[in-house]
This record gives sequence, C-alpha cells and structure tokens, in this order.
Amino acid sequence: MELGMIGIGRMGANMAQRLLRAGHKVVGYARTASTVEQRVKEGAISSGATSLEDVVKQLNSSPRILWLMVPAASVDDTIAQLLPHLSEGDILVDGGNSNYQDDIRRAAELEKHKIHYVDCGTSGGVWGLERGYCQMIGGEDEIVKYLDPIFKTLAPGVGAIDRTPGRPENKGTAEEGYLHCGPHGAGHFVKMVHNGIEYGVMAAYAEGLNILHNANIGKNTHMVDAETAPVQSPEHYQYDMDLPEISELWRRGSVISSWLLDLTAQSFQENPTLSNFSGRVADSGEGRWTIKAAIDEGVPAHVLSAALYDRFESRGQAEFANKVLSAMRFQFGGHHER
Amino acid sequence: MELGMIGIGRMGANMAQRLLRAGHKVVGYARTASTVEQRVKEGAISSGATSLEDVVKQLNSSPRILWLMVPAASVDDTIAQLLPHLSEGDILVDGGNSNYQDDIRRAAELEKHKIHYVDCGTSGGVWGLERGYCQMIGGEDEIVKYLDPIFKTLAPGVGAIDRTPGRPENKGTAEEGYLHCGPHGAGHFVKMVHNGIEYGVMAAYAEGLNILHNANIGKNTHMVDAETAPVQSPEHYQYDMDLPEISELWRRGSVISSWLLDLTAQSFQENPTLSNFSGRVADSGEGRWTIKAAIDEGVPAHVLSAALYDRFESRGQAEFANKVLSAMRFQFGGHHER
Amino acid sequence: MELGMIGIGRMGANMAQRLLRAGHKVVGYARTASTVEQRVKEGAISSGATSLEDVVKQLNSSPRILWLMVPAASVDDTIAQLLPHLSEGDILVDGGNSNYQDDIRRAAELEKHKIHYVDCGTSGGVWGLERGYCQMIGGEDEIVKYLDPIFKTLAPGVGAIDRTPGRPENKGTAEEGYLHCGPHGAGHFVKMVHNGIEYGVMAAYAEGLNILHNANIGKNTHMVDAETAPVQSPEHYQYDMDLPEISELWRRGSVISSWLLDLTAQSFQENPTLSNFSGRVADSGEGRWTIKAAIDEGVPAHVLSAALYDRFESRGQAEFANKVLSAMRFQFGGHHER
Amino acid sequence: MELGMIGIGRMGANMAQRLLRAGHKVVGYARTASTVEQRVKEGAISSGATSLEDVVKQLNSSPRILWLMVPAASVDDTIAQLLPHLSEGDILVDGGNSNYQDDIRRAAELEKHKIHYVDCGTSGGVWGLERGYCQMIGGEDEIVKYLDPIFKTLAPGVGAIDRTPGRPENKGTAEEGYLHCGPHGAGHFVKMVHNGIEYGVMAAYAEGLNILHNANIGKNTHMVDAETAPVQSPEHYQYDMDLPEISELWRRGSVISSWLLDLTAQSFQENPTLSNFSGRVADSGEGRWTIKAAIDEGVPAHVLSAALYDRFESRGQAEFANKVLSAMRFQFGGHHER
Repeated sequence: MELGMIGIGRMGANMAQRLLRAGHKVVGYARTASTVEQRVKEGAISSGATSLEDVVKQLNSSPRILWLMVPAASVDDTIAQLLPHLSEGDILVDGGNSNYQDDIRRAAELEKHKIHYVDCGTSGGVWGLERGYCQMIGGEDEIVKYLDPIFKTLAPGVGAIDRTPGRPENKGTAEEGYLHCGPHGAGHFVKMVHNGIEYGVMAAYAEGLNILHNANIGKNTHMVDAETAPVQSPEHYQYDMDLPEISELWRRGSVISSWLLDLTAQSFQENPTLSNFSGRVADSGEGRWTIKAAIDEGVPAHVLSAALYDRFESRGQAEFANKVLSAMRFQFGGHHER
Repeated sequence: MELGMIGIGRMGANMAQRLLRAGHKVVGYARTASTVEQRVKEGAISSGATSLEDVVKQLNSSPRILWLMVPAASVDDTIAQLLPHLSEGDILVDGGNSNYQDDIRRAAELEKHKIHYVDCGTSGGVWGLERGYCQMIGGEDEIVKYLDPIFKTLAPGVGAIDRTPGRPENKGTAEEGYLHCGPHGAGHFVKMVHNGIEYGVMAAYAEGLNILHNANIGKNTHMVDAETAPVQSPEHYQYDMDLPEISELWRRGSVISSWLLDLTAQSFQENPTLSNFSGRVADSGEGRWTIKAAIDEGVPAHVLSAALYDRFESRGQAEFANKVLSAMRFQFGGHHER
Repeated sequence: MELGMIGIGRMGANMAQRLLRAGHKVVGYARTASTVEQRVKEGAISSGATSLEDVVKQLNSSPRILWLMVPAASVDDTIAQLLPHLSEGDILVDGGNSNYQDDIRRAAELEKHKIHYVDCGTSGGVWGLERGYCQMIGGEDEIVKYLDPIFKTLAPGVGAIDRTPGRPENKGTAEEGYLHCGPHGAGHFVKMVHNGIEYGVMAAYAEGLNILHNANIGKNTHMVDAETAPVQSPEHYQYDMDLPEISELWRRGSVISSWLLDLTAQSFQENPTLSNFSGRVADSGEGRWTIKAAIDEGVPAHVLSAALYDRFESRGQAEFANKVLSAMRFQFGGHHER
Repeated sequence: MELGMIGIGRMGANMAQRLLRAGHKVVGYARTASTVEQRVKEGAISSGATSLEDVVKQLNSSPRILWLMVPAASVDDTIAQLLPHLSEGDILVDGGNSNYQDDIRRAAELEKHKIHYVDCGTSGGVWGLERGYCQMIGGEDEIVKYLDPIFKTLAPGVGAIDRTPGRPENKGTAEEGYLHCGPHGAGHFVKMVHNGIEYGVMAAYAEGLNILHNANIGKNTHMVDAETAPVQSPEHYQYDMDLPEISELWRRGSVISSWLLDLTAQSFQENPTLSNFSGRVADSGEGRWTIKAAIDEGVPAHVLSAALYDRFESRGQAEFANKVLSAMRFQFGGHHER
C-alpha cells in the first residue's frame, strides 16, 4: 500500500523503513528539511515531502492514508493544516501517544468532513524495526480492515513466541501483535493502560532491586540516639548482592522473566552500578491518564499510582510536602533536621 | 510519691518537673554529670545522682520506682546495670520508645528476679510540661494501679476538652489522658500504632498542602516534546495559594481541625515558605514497627506505609530504584534523562 | 442582609437557620413543596418560595444574593433556570461541592450576563448550625467583600480555640473560619484539597485502629501448609485492645488529637464494635478531583490516593483485579483459592 | 549424583523426576506412605523410604545430600529428626520457602555438628519439570560447588532465550538459571525479593486489566444525589474491552510482554470472564518478608507493599478499618451507608 508518514523522527523513520522493506510505499515528511533529506539517504522512506500539502499530492491511491507520528501536543495543529488538502474518504491514523479522549473528539470533528480517523497505540520503541510493533487500534470496522496490510506489516507476527495453548488458529490478529480494540479511542485507551501497567511492572523490579542493593546495610555503623531507630538486626543485612548476575539469573525459569527484565540485565551488563544514570525519571502522559481513568471508573489502582508518584518524587516534587513534615516535627517534638 | 528518673534530657526533665510541681520527689540521673547539675539548678529534679547505684540509694520508699527515659537502644544496658542494685518488688518503668516485643522479653526476664516491669508509651513532646502527657501503659494490674498517682500527675486531665457525649463519668482514666491498655507490651503497642497514625495524618496534610503549593503550575511554560506530556489544562492551575492563611482557616469549623494542624499554622506563621527546612524527614522506629505489625497480622496499611516510605524517599533512599527505571527507559525507548 | 437559599435540605436549612438567628433574612426554596413548608414551620427560613422565579421576586435588595445548596450535578440546570429572572449585578453563590473547574467555566459564562459568581466551599456538616461553617471562598474582590456579613455569620469565629501564637490580630478573616482564597474556583479548589486531606486523615486512623483491632490474632490457631505462612510470632499478638477507651485516651495530650478523633471516640461510645456499620464507604467527588489535580501538577499523593482507593475497594471494585491474581497463581503454581 | 528428597509433593516429585531423567539417583520420602508408593509407581524417584532414618541409610555416597522440600514451618522439626542419623560433612539443602533469617540461624546451629547447610530458593512452580527451575543459592563456596551437577540439572539452561548482548560466555552460571548468591541465607533472600517483585508485577497487570474491564462504566446510569459524584464524562467510558484478545495482543512486540502475561492470556483462553475464581488471593510469606526487609533497610517499597496489602484486602482484612470510616462519616455528616 501507499501512505504518508508525517513525523519521521526515530520512531516514525523506523516504522517507515519496516513498511518499505515489505514493499509498501512511504512518503515521509518532517518539519525540518534536513531530517527529510537524511531519511531519504538512509533509505527509510520512498520519497520526501517539502510540506504537508506535498505529502498529500504525492499520494496517488484513494482513499489516501496519512499516518501521524508527531508529539501528542502537535496532533491538532497538524490535522488542522492537513485538512484543506484532503478529500472525502481519506484516512488519518494517529500512531502517536494521544489521549483517547482527544481521539473521540477528533473523530467526531473529522466525520463532519467525511474524513476517517483511526487511533493506533504503538508499543515497541527503538526495538520495533527488527522486533515489530505491537499495535492497539481504534476506529470504524471497515476502515481498520482496509488498513490491515499496513498493521500486519508493522506487527511482530507470531514469530518464535509459543502460541497460547488451546487458542484457535483463526481467532484473529491478536497473536500477530495487532488488534482492532473497538471504536474511536479504544486503541489509545488500551495503549494508555498498557503504559500504566508498564510503569507498575518497572517499579516492581526497581523496588526489588533496591532492596537487594541495600542488603549490606548491616555493615554500616549507625548512631544510637533518641531520633533514629538503630537497624534492628544488622546481622541479617550483610549481603553484597551481584545485581548484574541476579537480573541475568531471573531471565530463565523464574516466574518474573520478562522483556523488561531482559533489558534490565542488559543495562547492568553495560554498567554494573548504573552510575551513568542520575535517577530523574520522566513520565510521558499515559501513566497519568491511566490513573485518571481508574478514578473516573472508581476502581483502585494502588500499584499503578505509586509507580507514577515515585517518578514525580524522583524529580523532587515531594520537596514541599517534606518540608511540611519537618516543620511539624520541629513544632511538636523540637526535632531538628540532620 | 518518689521515683528515680533515669535520663533527664529534654523530655525526661520536663516530666520530672511536672511531677515535682505536684509534690512528688524525683531523683534525676544522666550519664553526663553537667546535665544533672543543670537540672538541679533549673529545679527540674529534687536531687541529682552520680550513678545508677546512687539513684537507687537515694530512693527510700519500697518498692522503689525507677522510670527510664533513655534511647530505645540503651534500655537493655541500663537495666543490666541497674539490676544488681534493685530489691525484690522494685518497679521499672520504661517511658521511652521501646519496641513492645522487647517489653515482653524484658518483663519475663525481670520476673525471674521478682522485679516488676511497666511499659509506658508517652506522647506529648516538648509541650507536655504544660499540656500534660498522654500515657499508654502496659503491665500487671496491681503495679499499674500502684503507680496511678504518677500517671495521673503526668496526664493532661480532662481539662478544657469537651467530654465525649454519653460517656459515664466513672468509666475510667482514659479521659484524663492515661490508660492501662493491657499486659506487658500493650502500652508500647498502642503508642507504636499511635505514632504510625501520626505519620499518616502528617503525610495527609503534607500532601494536600503540596497540591495547594503547586496550584499555580499552569503559569509556567512547558516544553512540548514527545517525552513530556504538556500540562493538560494550564488554565485550571493559576492559583497562588496563601498557605499560612489556609492552614489557619481550617483550624475552626472544618472537619480536619487538629492539633497537628494548629502546629502547622504556627510553622507557617514563623516562616511562610518553610525555607528554614530542607525536607529530609527522620523516622524513629514506631512507624516501622507499626507496618511490621500490620504485616504480621495480615491487615492492609496502604496509608501508613506510604507515609513511612515517603520519609525514606525524602532521605534519598529511592535513588537506586530510580536509576533502574532510567536504565530501563533508555533500553526500550532510547530515552535520555534530563 | 437578605438572600435566597436554593436547596434547603439538611445542610442548607441549617445554614439558613444560622443566618436567621443573626438577623439576616432568608427566602428558602426546595423542589419539593412539603420541604419548604416544613422549613417555614421549623423557623429555619424567613419565608418559603414556590419556584425559582418566586425566590427572586421575594428579594428586594439590589444586588440580589442567591445561595445555591444543591447537588453538584444540578448546579448548571439550576443556574440556567434562574438566569432569566436575574438582573445585572446579581450575585450567585455556589455553596455546594462543585468541581472548581466548573466554577471557572460558569463564572466566565455568567460574566457575559453581568451576573457575579462566587464559589464557597463549606465544611462543617451536621455540626455547622452550632459550631459554624468553615468557608473557603473564590471570586471577585469587591463581591466577596460585599458578602462579608453573610460569611462572618456562617463562620465559627475565633471562639474557644487558641489563637496561633504570634499571629497579628488584624491579619484577616482566616482565624474566624472563612477566607477569600483567590479568583473564581479558588474556594472550591481549597475545599477540594481539604476533603482530600480529610480522606487521608480518616484512613490513617482507620488503618491504625484496624491494627489494634487485630492485635489478638496470635490467639487463633493457624494451619501449617505450603500456601500460608504461619503467624511468625503469635506470642506478640495476644492483646485484646479496648478501642473505645484508646480512642478516648488519645483525645488529650497526644500528638494525634483532632476533631475526627473526637468523633471516632463518640462512635465507639455509641457502639463499641461498630457493628451498626457494614464498611461500604462512599466517596463524593472531592477526593477524586484532588488526585486528578495532583496528577495534573505532577506532585506525588501516595497517601491521599491510597485513602481514595481503599474506599473503592470497600465497595468491591477490586474484585476483577483479584480474580486476575488468582488466575495467575493457578497457572504458575497450581494454587487453588480457598 | 545421589540425593535424598524429603518432601515429594507436587513440587518435590517434579524436581526428583527432572534429576532422575538426567541420571541422578533420588531416594524419596514423604510422611504419608501412600505418597511414596505412588511416586515410585510414577517413576518420579529411584526408590522410596519409610522414614527419615531410612532415607539416610539408603544414601551411599559421602557426604550425603539431603534436599528438603517441606513447608517452611516444618523445616526445623525435620532437621531435628534427621540430625541424629547424619554424619560429619553431610549436606542439608533447604529448597523450600524458608525465611532467610532462619537459614542464618540454622547454618550456625548445624555448623556445631559439622553439618553443612545450603539454602536454595526455587522458582518454577508446576512448570519446572519441563521448563527447569530458577535456583537462588546461599551457602559455603566449596559446598555449593560440590552440588553443582544437581543445580545444573534442575536449572533451565540457556535454552531458546537470547543471550544478553555483550555478556562473556564464561561469566558464570546465571545465564543457565542458577546462581550462588552469597553466604547462608543469600539464596532465600534473593528468592524472597523475587517473590516480592512477583507480587508487584502481578498486581500491575491485575490493576490495568481491571481498568480495561470497567471501561464501559459510562453505559450505566448513575443516581444524582449529594453523596455520590456522577461519572464525570460517561461518554469516555463506553468501551467493551475483549480482555482475552488484549492480553494475547500484548504478548508480542509490546514492552510488557512477560511469562506472567503469557499465563494471563492462557487463563483468559480457558475462561474469558475468570468466573471460575472468586478473588480471594493467598500470600505465602515471601511478600511479607520482602516488605520487612525494605523497612529494616529504610528503603521505600510503595509498589510491593501495595501489592501485598491488596491481597490482604481481597480476603476481607480491611473490613474493620472501613467500618471506622463509615462511623466517622456518619458522625460528621450524618452520612448513612448504602
């Protein structure tokens, strides 16, 4: 098939390349001309466009397919600029990290112009070019079906991963790594929760590894005063744990083997103390939206929230709260901070 | 009555003074001779002792009462040094912050020597001299009854606080601010949970005030990129909240009025930005033991645990966990820390 | 002054009565005619109205003051019905539990009609008639000033509560229990966070009391099998704690004394086992909005979130999540549920 | 090699069988004679023993190896009964789920008898027979080295899982799925944290799936009253998510692919609504110990604790806390439970 890829940064360029390799035609566009030139040189796109209008013009098939890989905050602007150049029946795919509520709104607006909108949450990161992209898709049935060759190409396919026992072969595309999840917004909703889970899983490993990292705390000598409880049983915390080897160990045969653990083992392989990181952890929106959805639904999300808040705390956002605590302690007990 | 106060730091000296004012006799001892001298000068104790043996010798009544106000980690040592000088029937009161499990062990050991042991969790901090001390007491019935004049003197009494409607006048000492909670350890158990609750209540105020403190975040301009979600609705976060006035406001008529809030208002009165604090918050043992008790009992303690962990985090103890998160993000998405 | 009170349920009627007692005139309206009649009979309102139009007609002063005490979900409707009957300069006060974001929107809409809007978060519950209402106010400076006599009457006043040491006498209204917190929405924002804190404080007491409640768990005999860890040290959990007395005890001299604790002691006085409650805990919106605000601001709220989620869980909302856990355990370990 | 397997329930029998298949000799023992007979019939063990003494007698090699697969609560008893029949230099391996602190104590006690002790945390569950067991080992260097053929046989081996890029081939046994983690207790310490992480990872999936499960909550009609906030935007929660397909989807190409997710997909394949589970989730000790270790070390564990507490809550252990909340709400607001 033929599509326009709008946004050919790291992620978009890799997706374009995976499509190219499978014989699709991809017209690429980025705001910076030099990026476009470079992607052409790399062979990541079939051709480069000089403007959004130019992307549309270079697409011959009808309906046209325009795949957006731009920051969530730029999607509305990009659509507004594209709209005058589109024709009835054309298809816009938002493959970025939009909030699903924006999808619902946009689809309704675009419907007035008879433009179809598809939301496609995409997981896979920098590994997707080789590993394939897990795609969570929302939109109209026949439009999603029409785009199937694109999704199938980008998806990982069944590959080397065991099929789930008892699952009928013809049950659908999920086992190839892409799925039409429901109407507009359903794709980004599932992707949102996916990322929410990701935060939680990551935090579980991180907390556990931190406990192992501090398993030698009994070797330190602690002051004995009225303010600080002594380590209750220092003899129980005398272990110098080898985290690179332990994270490697768990990759095989353990209940907690996972791709994130594979990556953790690789990180420790590259730097056994992780001294190349400072520990300020970003969050990119989906974790926040997941918690808001949980709250709207009235379902508990202790773990996913804690994972999100720990990222806020890693960036110093609890500082004022902590000052309040110190102030209270000073007032009632005369406790001074160390 | 007559008692020996072992440990006359800030807290012990105030308690001695409150006893003295009510006509009790208090022999005071501290490891540092100059402290003893100072307390005599201040009129905080009836007389000073030069050694633990000297404390015992200066007590004429039988049984003798020895009240320990020493760090939890020093209690066992102090008892061991006292023991040779005591007589059958003498009473040891641990008024500090011991773990209740140590009380159970100590009481059993001392019973072999026919020495009585009483654990007395004491709340009141630097305010107790004037306000009185809330006392949570564990031990044998008749021994606790024998000590009643001491407890009553130290306690706040009913005072200006409304009696609980419907409560019979003769129901017991709880409304005077002291209570025999049960057998050995029961006092420190109740004090432990008291402090666990204290951590949770403090954290609730601190988090809420932090949310108010950041209510102007929409005034900042945020970068738009693929990594960071923009503030979703900056127009909703344009408030410069006056925390000194708001904490004052809530003191009257609101559901969350409390003594801790009174102290918070006072802190803001003294320094409206709390710039005199850095936000490294200590924890002194009871919060930890509370969580361990919850776990042993198999009851959830989401809030109290979170309050404890936030103190750990305020001291940088999540750093390694955060590095693990950054390492994972770099591996799967090529994300670099800012 | 003179005002129309729209919504004279329990809360609105009490507020009307407090205003009446101080000499203000209150025209009351409720959708159910019998409610209006009853309030007139009780002497809770100066006069009753038969419709929203009738309320407006009965108010002679200019500008008119209309105070809404209706469910958050009915505010927009009520305003829409009132609007045709109002004149330029009239003042609408929303004294209910609206989301502050709705305040911002409504104030902007009403400004087009030259109607002033004031948001007033009100704490005090069923106790407010006697105790006074803590009021958190948002809106235009001169309008809030104009309403001052109303706010002052509803507020608790300094009363018997100690003034914060060092606070200048003329510093403002906060110590009387009402405060102009900022522009439109600021009042409900502060009330929202107030309730978020309330959830956290309540949960801290509830968790702590639950730990005390289970302090006798070592008396039970537990099965020894591969699935269930035995209670590690049953000898440490042999206490039958008297919660009515302990909650009474903490009211005086302890760090955690508070109005919520007073109420807890009273609940235990009325029913020592709380067997009159089932433990399904409602939440009324502000707790949810507080967490959403924390997330928008990017500040951690471990404790306040946990308190909210525990309410969701008390209503069975974790059930499906728990089934997923059981399903996983069955898959990897053949574990069957009990 | 030759060893005695004490405890041949599901787990122990599978391990014995895996050893047998590789040519080792396994003498099996269980308290119930019929179990021993059945294991012999199944060919899971080389021979059966009628008593602990008989196990020891049937082992000819020196030192003898005795591998315990009994409930944690029975290990001390079993060791006490075995001890009289052992000779200097014999080796006891605890392959069950002991607390690492018990390992430290036991190793010290057994050292007096010149018996060697090895702790081996074992992950793999009912899948281990085919998949191999991930083994986390603590003990003396030369003893662990001596047992290497046993560990290697039980371990999964490198198998089909990609080697970690850059890891030297000869770096050690971790990539075969077993590791000598450190001195006595180190094995069970690592296994403990492994299980703590497992709880957290499981909870992350469970919470996320629960949010998806409730994504249709906007289809319900909600009452509008003062107590319950209406669903803020029902139009955003109209999705009927197909969890069997979504859990299948994430298995390929997504960041959260894992073995636990594979098992989840299989559970949904077997029962798409998980109606065969009630949602009462057991916990078997390691999760609790992990939190206690975190607390002793002073490191935060928000996520792992939340996961543990959610299990407690699934079994109704928050009930009394919730009653306290309802009681407070009734007191301050006259709120009745539904």
